[in-house]
Amino acid sequence: MTTGLFLGRFQPVHSGHILSIKGILEEVDDLIIVVGSALKSFSLQNPFTAGERIHMIRLALSEAGVPPERVMVLAVPDTLPPNYHGIYVSQVETYCPGFDLVYTHNPLVRSLFEQAGYDLGDHRVFDRERFWGTTIRDGMINGGSWRDCVPSSVAEYIDEIEGVRRLKQLSGTDEPGQ
Amino acid sequence: MTTGLFLGRFQPVHSGHILSIKGILEEVDDLIIVVGSALKSFSLQNPFTAGERIHMIRLALSEAGVPPERVMVLAVPDTLPPNYHGIYVSQVETYCPGFDLVYTHNPLVRSLFEQAGYDLGDHRVFDRERFWGTTIRDGMINGGSWRDCVPSSVAEYIDEIEGVRRLKQLSGTDEPGQ
Amino acid sequence: MTTGLFLGRFQPVHSGHILSIKGILEEVDDLIIVVGSALKSFSLQNPFTAGERIHMIRLALSEAGVPPERVMVLAVPDTLPPNYHGIYVSQVETYCPGFDLVYTHNPLVRSLFEQAGYDLGDHRVFDRERFWGTTIRDGMINGGSWRDCVPSSVAEYIDEIEGVRRLKQLSGTDEPGQ
Amino acid sequence: MTTGLFLGRFQPVHSGHILSIKGILEEVDDLIIVVGSALKSFSLQNPFTAGERIHMIRLALSEAGVPPERVMVLAVPDTLPPNYHGIYVSQVETYCPGFDLVYTHNPLVRSLFEQAGYDLGDHRVFDRERFWGTTIRDGMINGGSWRDCVPSSVAEYIDEIEGVRRLKQLSGTDEPGQ
Amino acid sequence: MTTGLFLGRFQPVHSGHILSIKGILEEVDDLIIVVGSALKSFSLQNPFTAGERIHMIRLALSEAGVPPERVMVLAVPDTLPPNYHGIYVSQVETYCPGFDLVYTHNPLVRSLFEQAGYDLGDHRVFDRERFWGTTIRDGMINGGSWRDCVPSSVAEYIDEIEGVRRLKQLSGTDEPGQ
Amino acid sequence: MTTGLFLGRFQPVHSGHILSIKGILEEVDDLIIVVGSALKSFSLQNPFTAGERIHMIRLALSEAGVPPERVMVLAVPDTLPPNYHGIYVSQVETYCPGFDLVYTHNPLVRSLFEQAGYDLGDHRVFDRERFWGTTIRDGMINGGSWRDCVPSSVAEYIDEIEGVRRLKQLSGTDEPGQ
Repeated sequence: MTTGLFLGRFQPVHSGHILSIKGILEEVDDLIIVVGSALKSFSLQNPFTAGERIHMIRLALSEAGVPPERVMVLAVPDTLPPNYHGIYVSQVETYCPGFDLVYTHNPLVRSLFEQAGYDLGDHRVFDRERFWGTTIRDGMINGGSWRDCVPSSVAEYIDEIEGVRRLKQLSGTDEPGQ
Repeated sequence: MTTGLFLGRFQPVHSGHILSIKGILEEVDDLIIVVGSALKSFSLQNPFTAGERIHMIRLALSEAGVPPERVMVLAVPDTLPPNYHGIYVSQVETYCPGFDLVYTHNPLVRSLFEQAGYDLGDHRVFDRERFWGTTIRDGMINGGSWRDCVPSSVAEYIDEIEGVRRLKQLSGTDEPGQ
Repeated sequence: MTTGLFLGRFQPVHSGHILSIKGILEEVDDLIIVVGSALKSFSLQNPFTAGERIHMIRLALSEAGVPPERVMVLAVPDTLPPNYHGIYVSQVETYCPGFDLVYTHNPLVRSLFEQAGYDLGDHRVFDRERFWGTTIRDGMINGGSWRDCVPSSVAEYIDEIEGVRRLKQLSGTDEPGQ
Repeated sequence: MTTGLFLGRFQPVHSGHILSIKGILEEVDDLIIVVGSALKSFSLQNPFTAGERIHMIRLALSEAGVPPERVMVLAVPDTLPPNYHGIYVSQVETYCPGFDLVYTHNPLVRSLFEQAGYDLGDHRVFDRERFWGTTIRDGMINGGSWRDCVPSSVAEYIDEIEGVRRLKQLSGTDEPGQ
Repeated sequence: MTTGLFLGRFQPVHSGHILSIKGILEEVDDLIIVVGSALKSFSLQNPFTAGERIHMIRLALSEAGVPPERVMVLAVPDTLPPNYHGIYVSQVETYCPGFDLVYTHNPLVRSLFEQAGYDLGDHRVFDRERFWGTTIRDGMINGGSWRDCVPSSVAEYIDEIEGVRRLKQLSGTDEPGQ
Repeated sequence: MTTGLFLGRFQPVHSGHILSIKGILEEVDDLIIVVGSALKSFSLQNPFTAGERIHMIRLALSEAGVPPERVMVLAVPDTLPPNYHGIYVSQVETYCPGFDLVYTHNPLVRSLFEQAGYDLGDHRVFDRERFWGTTIRDGMINGGSWRDCVPSSVAEYIDEIEGVRRLKQLSGTDEPGQ
């Protein structure tokens, strides 16, 4: 049995993530989805808490019909002190059940897991330009079309927690005359 | 819809935990199981890593036939610095999706969530004397009968990761003549 | 009785701060002044220690004739890890006696306290262009006119601790030929 | 002008503290009162938050008629990691305005400040047996006579925040049949 | 070429340590000596700073005629948070050049390095009863005969830094009538 | 006897460092070389671990014929939280045996040690443009001529640990078509 580990920040969860997860599930039996940078929230780069991101992933997986028993969602903070990269793999190992293949877009994380002797899974990145966290967060702040880049259950949840208002507040663009 | 939060250390998962979880699931719709003290491991009080404990819980829930879509397992570290209790509720909130009712045996944690305005769920403690982490860990070290206090899938997993040997090593009792 | 909380970095204390404090004291009975980012010092953005900033505030309040029994000055560090914004309100609450109204210029801090259910006090910003930390620190480094933007007791104290020399050292501009 | 520094945990503030402070104020011009172990709270040894302890000190000083302009109350956390004693003096220095004489009962703290070259003030300990934090906290839990060992304004405040109930909860003695 | 790693707390360096090091140097080419718990000092269990312990080791090695090019002395702090044992091996790896064989008396550390796949070197413990940190520190406090258990250069250095007085201060035994 | 302290990041060790060390050794009896920012690694600014940098220094000193008994190499992390500059000198003091003269290029570190009352040693910077970490790391990534700026034993070690590949991975320049 093969267990994969898929590591991202999910700020927010978008349709590219779900396509990736579905693709990975064709190659592995079980998948651990790691919500990285778990303690970061309420910033322009990382607006949502770990709890909110976990909730988004569960909504999106359910909407996509992914069987819940094949997937586990866990949150892992960055190392302390920040950027103590030399212990990062070890930290992920303490937080997660065992895994065999590591999937991630992040070149640093790829480098660290490779250095530690892990096999890196190959997964296609789907329509990166459209499904990209930075673009989506920019769309939220500037009134762009982010809504069709995320699963509809995620869009509804972002409305429910007033995610767009939060991002605008953090960017200062909600205040008249500032 | 009501979401419960059940907080424990699960060192290791035992049958009392599973009875509690089944009881709680009769009162709430969804349940977040929090593996507390997530960073503690390889000590006599806390022998297993968060990842190992999460794996045990999933094995036990599956053995008990609990529907996976109703339960979510998350790991939350202690505060930093240790015993900075005043921020603990806030820390749990950042790690977890929203919840309504808090279940825990720990008097400190009860006190903290109550102070923060949460409702505390009432749940029976099942056969505390028998299903108690301390007793079970002692049994592992001293050759007592721990095996019938945990779900059989958990016992097998503890064998697989050589958990008893680990505890004996940590207690120094595996070394001849020390 | 109403207690206000005014949160700033005070790098250094300037006349705009004192005008704000006097304005807030017309609206609240007691005021807690929080020196934020308490552990930051000896950098271009944050040259002064918490202790030095507390001393500046006390000098300035005394110079302005503010009654000492109505004001309390406390230092609160940033969260650990840095930018763990989700626990910041909770951290401020553990450091400070209870408060009702929060005053701050910082959009992130406003957002966090609002999210936690606090009322935000409305206070005018006085001559922001002139009374602005960044401008004042630049003036110190480049020989600009910072001295008339801060209370005279603060200017004297900055002289006493050789604050201008410190900033020049940190910026490298005090070293010939570097 | 001489500034003293008086360092304690104030769990809770008691009449011995106030006698010490009044005695010290006969020897120094200004006094910085440091609430140590600022992040500890909600434990049997450290039940009250820094904010609550600061409030108690201000109430007690006001009740005792100590002039507010001669005293400053600040909170300082323990070092990180805990027990990194080698940097403690330096940490206190960053949190506080300059000081000349250090007053404390704690032998470790005395040793550290002496090692760093500070003069230690001599102050009498008043009726240690009666005015002692441990005795007072025990009295709160076990129904002993703590109330006459603290200033009456402090006793009222402890009632207001239900401090006795908190201590009993933490000790588990409030729960029937546990 | 084989590199050994010898891990201890060295509170203080004693003759048993030096016998161990000489024994290990018969089995390996190079030796890294790790001063563990580097940040602990000024406590009864850990009176000396990392810098002081490094100095003691260098004095003792020189006194014993160990060639300096075969030995390297490094200080490694405990993990943060304390007892985050799951990352300890990884932390030691980031602090030290590569090593092949691990020597230590500590059962936890043995367990962690074994779990990580390292070979544990076998080394005799020399006269444990006599050459034991706890006994030596007790001797310092209570006027016992510690001096003949440590190399004479180490004894002189402990005198120079007034180590015995420090321990007595920390234990409170230097104060008349306390 | 005079002990110097030379503080740098050594990312990587280059020939300018060795020229500096030889120059300093003409002025002091003993030298402590501090590898600063010890926990930083696997980033574009800080590619190498403390252990790797310590190894490089020892190789280079041996190649240059520096007597090992006059030099000690130690690793010191940045403060926690990052940029808590007010305790940095104190932290270095706990990690290192006593020292008299401080040598460093870093203006912040110079400012901090001067503030703490240390004498700063004067040492020439050798051919800064050529022997400069930033230039050397850029050369590694972009195929520039870094190899003649570092001692040949260091160049060989960097080859052995595939340092150039690591930097290219971290910069993303090793991936076709990214």
